[in-house]
Amino acid sequence: MKKQFAVIGLGRFGGSICTELLEQGMEVLAIDKDEERVNEYASIATHAAIADTTDEAVLKNLGIRNFDHVIVAIGDDIQSSILTTLILKEVGVRFITVKAQNDHHAKVLRKIGADHVVHPERDMGRRIAHYIVSKNILDYLELSDEYSIVEIKVNELLAGHSLIDLDVRARYGINIVAIKRGREIIVTPPAEAPLQQEDILIVIGADTDINRFEKKVLS
Amino acid sequence: MKKQFAVIGLGRFGGSICTELLEQGMEVLAIDKDEERVNEYASIATHAAIADTTDEAVLKNLGIRNFDHVIVAIGDDIQSSILTTLILKEVGVRFITVKAQNDHHAKVLRKIGADHVVHPERDMGRRIAHYIVSKNILDYLELSDEYSIVEIKVNELLAGHSLIDLDVRARYGINIVAIKRGREIIVTPPAEAPLQQEDILIVIGADTDINRFEKKVLS
Ligand SMILES: Nc1ncnc2c1ncn2[C@@H]1O[C@H](COP(=O)(O)OP(=O)(O)OP(=O)(O)O)[C@@H](O)[C@H]1O
Ligand SMILES: Nc1ncnc2c1ncn2[C@@H]1O[C@H](COP(=O)(O)OP(=O)(O)OP(=O)(O)O)[C@@H](O)[C@H]1O
Ligand SMILES: [Ca+2]
Ligand SMILES: [Ca+2]
Ligand SMILES: [Ca+2]
Ligand SMILES: [Ca+2]
Repeated sequence: MKKQFAVIGLGRFGGSICTELLEQGMEVLAIDKDEERVNEYASIATHAAIADTTDEAVLKNLGIRNFDHVIVAIGDDIQSSILTTLILKEVGVRFITVKAQNDHHAKVLRKIGADHVVHPERDMGRRIAHYIVSKNILDYLELSDEYSIVEIKVNELLAGHSLIDLDVRARYGINIVAIKRGREIIVTPPAEAPLQQEDILIVIGADTDINRFEKKVLS
Repeated sequence: MKKQFAVIGLGRFGGSICTELLEQGMEVLAIDKDEERVNEYASIATHAAIADTTDEAVLKNLGIRNFDHVIVAIGDDIQSSILTTLILKEVGVRFITVKAQNDHHAKVLRKIGADHVVHPERDMGRRIAHYIVSKNILDYLELSDEYSIVEIKVNELLAGHSLIDLDVRARYGINIVAIKRGREIIVTPPAEAPLQQEDILIVIGADTDINRFEKKVLS
């Protein structure tokens, strides 16, 4: 049987999770206490319900305990977020993801049994700050505190050089794992072919080495 | 000279950008009309100001036009977000990033000259939905509509096998570019060494191939 999801709170974050799960072919029950919000999602969600989830009877009536994974995306009303999580846990929902507003909220959520606590605004702030400081880094995946995979834009200084020319592995200890050229992704790119302006390098390495490469080669 | 940043709106998103820019050694002016919010950041920010940024005179007094990059992270008050952006553009700020609440807001922001429009909640919702549907995928970087780099948890079915055994490149068309083992990142991992449970594979490939690998090998 297909995994059953429910999303509580259809703000921008909860709404986006709902849309994306549906796009991936999942079954999703969309819940909000605000009728307008529910109407927005009623046509795309598998099921939709107007409900205040701090009411245990309401949640039970929705058969919430049969869901495999419930995402609580209630925002500003921290008390409702906590109470909802508590009830979900009590009725026996298998996996609960909850959005936290701050560290204190997160701590409480973990204590009462939330399986996964997320900080979407904070995490996205970090991500965006990370590539805001560099004109050349477009996006990144943090592998650990010290290692990342980054997307680096090829500029006029890099264009025309081949990977052999640059020899980044020996010189900087980093690896170019792919090149993005328009809509094409070239995995394990040939060492001799010249880079083109507008290419995007997918680079793996230690943050310090990536920074060194960026400073020496790109500016 | 160091690049000068200003962040307007110290909610969770703007606050996080502020903190991360400072951690990266940047100079940041933190602005909010809410005194409490400003006080929270006054001790870590380079400068901090209580100001309503819809007032042109106030922004000019802050010398805002000398900043290289201003981030507008005003949320629910869409009108203030638009008016602030308009003024920043008029006084000649070089680069303006603005948080949008929805598509309509984003469209207006681009029209009036915002250089970079971001949707933190929506993007994070997509990211989280993406790896919520799979127990094994921990995080990912979307390289294009069809290609991604993903972190895949090694489970009991995979543990003990070597990369030669698995031969994922020939069988699935994907590449394992690194292995995360505890705090260590093993780039271009040796083909003969057995995988350990708790290892995390960093895999690059087409989404369809990654899915195929996940379905066949991990479940
Ligand atoms: N007790 C409740 N039961 C059901 N839904 C609720 C409850 N409390 C709040 N919500 C809903 O949760 C949604 C998200 O809440 P809110 O808008 O405060 O969060 P936010 O963090 O600002 O959202 P965003 O994801 O847009 O950043 C709202 O649509 C609200 O109606
Ligand atoms: N005209 C203004 N001038 C200065 N600051 C403003 C102005 N209008 C709003 N702000 C500030 O912007 C901040 C963010 O706004 P708000 O909390 O509505 O956004 P949000 O999207 O819910 O935030 P979050 O990033 O937490 O999701 C608030 O601290 C608010 O005081
Ligand atoms: Ca809000
Ligand atoms: Ca928000
Ligand atoms: Ca880092
Ligand atoms: Ca995709």
